[in-house]
Amino acid sequence: MGSNLARNLASREGNTVAVFNRSYERTQLLVGEHPEAGFVPGESYDAFVASLSKPRTAIIMVQAGAGTDAVIGELVKRFEPGDIIVDGGNANFHDTIRREAEIKPTGIHFVGTGISGGEEGALNGPSIMPGGTAESYETLGPILESIAARAPEDGAPCVTHVGTDGAGHFVKMVHNGIEYADMQLIAEAYDLIRSGTGKSPAEIADIFAEWNTGELESYLIEITAEVLRQVDAETGKPLVDVILDEAGAKGTGAWTVQNALDLGVPVSGIAEAVFARSLSSSRAQRDAATDLPGPDETFVVDDVDAFVEDVRQALYASKIIAYSQGFDEIIAGAAQFGWDIKKGDIARIWRAGCIIRARFLNRIADAYAEHPDLAALVVAPYFRDAVAGAQASWRKVVAVAAQAGIPTPAFSSSLAYYDGLRAKRLPAALVQGQRDFFGAHTYKRVDKPGVFHTLWSGDHTEIETVPSSH
Amino acid sequence: MGSNLARNLASREGNTVAVFNRSYERTQLLVGEHPEAGFVPGESYDAFVASLSKPRTAIIMVQAGAGTDAVIGELVKRFEPGDIIVDGGNANFHDTIRREAEIKPTGIHFVGTGISGGEEGALNGPSIMPGGTAESYETLGPILESIAARAPEDGAPCVTHVGTDGAGHFVKMVHNGIEYADMQLIAEAYDLIRSGTGKSPAEIADIFAEWNTGELESYLIEITAEVLRQVDAETGKPLVDVILDEAGAKGTGAWTVQNALDLGVPVSGIAEAVFARSLSSSRAQRDAATDLPGPDETFVVDDVDAFVEDVRQALYASKIIAYSQGFDEIIAGAAQFGWDIKKGDIARIWRAGCIIRARFLNRIADAYAEHPDLAALVVAPYFRDAVAGAQASWRKVVAVAAQAGIPTPAFSSSLAYYDGLRAKRLPAALVQGQRDFFGAHTYKRVDKPGVFHTLWSGDHTEIETVPSSH
Repeated sequence: MGSNLARNLASREGNTVAVFNRSYERTQLLVGEHPEAGFVPGESYDAFVASLSKPRTAIIMVQAGAGTDAVIGELVKRFEPGDIIVDGGNANFHDTIRREAEIKPTGIHFVGTGISGGEEGALNGPSIMPGGTAESYETLGPILESIAARAPEDGAPCVTHVGTDGAGHFVKMVHNGIEYADMQLIAEAYDLIRSGTGKSPAEIADIFAEWNTGELESYLIEITAEVLRQVDAETGKPLVDVILDEAGAKGTGAWTVQNALDLGVPVSGIAEAVFARSLSSSRAQRDAATDLPGPDETFVVDDVDAFVEDVRQALYASKIIAYSQGFDEIIAGAAQFGWDIKKGDIARIWRAGCIIRARFLNRIADAYAEHPDLAALVVAPYFRDAVAGAQASWRKVVAVAAQAGIPTPAFSSSLAYYDGLRAKRLPAALVQGQRDFFGAHTYKRVDKPGVFHTLWSGDHTEIETVPSSH
Repeated sequence: MGSNLARNLASREGNTVAVFNRSYERTQLLVGEHPEAGFVPGESYDAFVASLSKPRTAIIMVQAGAGTDAVIGELVKRFEPGDIIVDGGNANFHDTIRREAEIKPTGIHFVGTGISGGEEGALNGPSIMPGGTAESYETLGPILESIAARAPEDGAPCVTHVGTDGAGHFVKMVHNGIEYADMQLIAEAYDLIRSGTGKSPAEIADIFAEWNTGELESYLIEITAEVLRQVDAETGKPLVDVILDEAGAKGTGAWTVQNALDLGVPVSGIAEAVFARSLSSSRAQRDAATDLPGPDETFVVDDVDAFVEDVRQALYASKIIAYSQGFDEIIAGAAQFGWDIKKGDIARIWRAGCIIRARFLNRIADAYAEHPDLAALVVAPYFRDAVAGAQASWRKVVAVAAQAGIPTPAFSSSLAYYDGLRAKRLPAALVQGQRDFFGAHTYKRVDKPGVFHTLWSGDHTEIETVPSSH
C-alpha cells in the first residue's frame, strides 16, 4: 500500500516524492518500475531526510507495532521542530496517543492517520482520517486533500482533521469494525439465498448487482457481485466454492470490540462479525462438530423473489444498526479521549475511497448535519423510517434462519439490539436483582433516587445504602 | 467479602486468623462484632506481619487495581522467602502474571486466586481457584481446602491448583463471563414468558422453582425464583418491577470477551450478555428510541405450557453453548500462557460454592474425564444429545422472539453459534474473496495447499503467492 500511496502522491501536480525502504533494493525496484513518478530514492535515512524540503513531511507505511516505533525513532533523530511524521499504518490508537505524547516535546508533529481503500484506494484516492494537532493539518491538509478520493456527489476530498492525537486511528479502527459487520451481513445474505433458493453464485451475483443500483449501493456490494461471478479456471467451479471457508483477520475488528467494551458501548453486530471469522477458523472445533444435528426439515423457500427481497431488507436494516453502533463508539471515544469529532464529517469522508463507501453515508451525514447531538443514528427520521419499512422482512428472515439452521449471527444480533434499544422495560431489572442477591451489588428504583439493597439472607427488607465497591 | 472469608477461616479447627485493614477502626469493629472468631487484630502492617506464624500466609481482599499493588508492596517489605501472599480479589490475570514475576526474585510466593460465591459463599464456603507455584499450593492447599465449599455429590472441596502465575485469575475471569451469559439467558427466559403469557413475576417464580428440580438445577435459577417472588414493601408491586432496568457490571465479563478476542475464541454468547448490560445502561439512547416501531401484532402465546417448556429447552441449549464457549477460552488461554489446566477439575470445583454452581457441571466433569482432549464441550455425547433434544424448541423460541420483538440476544447468538459450528460450509469463503479483492489478503483453496490471490484489478487470473503481511 505504501508504494501505491507514494505513486498517488507523485501523480499530483507540484509534488516531488522521496521514497525510502529498509531495503534499498526494493526502493530502487519501485523507482525503476515507475519512472513516471519521478521518485527520489533515499539510500539511507540521512539521504532520505536530506532530500526533503522543509517543513519536512514523511509518511510511514509499515506494519503496525514495533517496526513503526523503530522508523519513527530514526526520523525523530533527524527531523527538526515543525517537521511532520505521519503514521499511515493501522496503528492501535493507544500507541498513537503514546507516540504523539513522546514526540511532542521535540517540537516535531506526530500525526497518526487512518487510510482506507486498500491497494486500489491508495493509488487512486483513499479516504484519509488524520489525527494530530490542528497546526500540523495546516501543512498536511493540502497534501492529503490532493491525494484523497473525492465524493461523487460534490467532489469534496475524503479527508478531514478528525481530532487530536489518536483520533484518526480511532476512527479508522471503528471504520474497520463497521467493515467487518458489513462483510458478515453480506455473507449471511448470500448464504441464506444460496441455501434457501439453490441459486448459483453467478445468479446471486446478479442479485447483488441489482441491489447495487438501490439504497444498498456500496463498494462492498459491488465487489461481492464480482467475487461471486468469478469462475475458478482450474476446476470450472465458482471461485467462492473453491476458497477455503476460514476467514482471516488483521486485528482492527477485535480492537473495535475491545475498546467498545472499555467504553461500555454495545457493538454487538461488529462483535458477532469478528467472532464469525474466528469461528470459521476454529478448525478443530468445526471438524469435531460436523455431525451435530440440525433441523429435521430441508430448507426450501416457496416464493423466491419475495424471500430475496426480505433478505435485502434484512441486510439494509442490519447495516443501519452496524453503523449506528459504530457511530455510538465514535461518540463515546470522543468523549473519553477529549476529541472534538464531527460525526457528519466522518460520514462525509467515508463516502468515497474507503472500503465501506456507500450511498447511504450521505444520509448519515445529513442526519448529523440536522441533529449534531443525535442520541443514536437509528433514531434519525430517515433511518427510523427505513427500519420501520424493513422490519417485517427482517424479523421474518431471522425467524426463517433460526428454523432452517442457517447461521445468521449478525442479522440476529442486530435485530435483538434494535428490540433491546426500543424496549420500554428490559429484564436487566432481574439481572440487577440477581446481582443484589448474590453480591450485594445494590440496585436503583424506578420511583425514587437512591441506591438500595434487599437483605436477601436476612428478613428480606430493603435498606438504602451506598453503591457497593466490590 | 474479606471479613466473611476471614470468619470462614477462623471457624475452621486449628486456624487462628490475624486481620488487618487500613482503618484500624474497621478492624476493631470486625473483631468486636465476631468475638467467636478469635481474630487477632493488626494495628499496623508491622504488628500484623509479626503476629503471623511461619511460613506466613496473607490473603489480600481489596478492590482490584492500584490498591492491590500498594498492599502487596507493604507485605513484600516485611515477608521472608517461603512466605505466601495471596490476592483473592478479582485481579486482571495479566496483572497477576506481572506481580508474580516481580515478586518471584524475593523468594516470596505470590498466588493470585479466584474466589467465587459472593458474600454468602465467602462465609460458608466459596469455590476457590488459586494460581501460583505448585510449591505454594503445598502450604496453601490445606488452608483453602478447609474453607472451600464441598460438592454435594462427593464432598470434595471446591478448590484445586489451577496452574501457575495468572491461571487462577484467568479461570475466575472466564467463570464470571459464563455467569454473565447464564444471567442474561435467564433474564431472556423470564422476559419471554412474561411478555408472551402475561404471567406475573410470582407465577414465573414458581416456574423457575420447578425448573430447579430438573437438569437446569443451579444456584442462579434458584435465586431467580427468590428475586421474582419478592414483593416491594413500599408499593406492593413485584420488586422486579420496581428495580431500575439498567444492569451494572464490574468488568470481568468485558475482560472475558476482550481476552477471547486476543485469543481468537468466539465467545459470542458471553459478549451478547455483556453488551445487553451496557445497552440497558445506555440511557440516552434508550430514551431516544422508545418510539422506534416494533411488530404490528401483539405477542400472545396460544399454548402456554408448551411455550414455557420451549423456553426451558432454549435456555438449557443456550446454556450449554455458553459453557462450551467458556471452556474453549480456558483451553486457548492455557495453551497461550503455558498452563496445564485440567478442564475436568475446573468443572468439579465449580460444582459448589460459586455463582454458576449447577447440577450439570457434573456432566461437564464427566465429559472431560472421558475425553480430556474434547474439541468442544457441545460435541461430547451427553451435551450433543441434550442439544439435539432441545433444538426444535430452541429454534422455535428464537423465531418467535424475532417475530414478537422481544430481544433475545443471547438465545439468538447461541443458536447462530451452534449452526455456525456445525456448518459444513460457511460463507467465510465469500469474506475471504472480498478481502482478497480489496486488500490482496489472499486465500487458501479447499483442493490443494498454498496461498492464492486473484488478480482482481487485472485479468482475473489466479496466482500462487505468499500470505500478505499488510
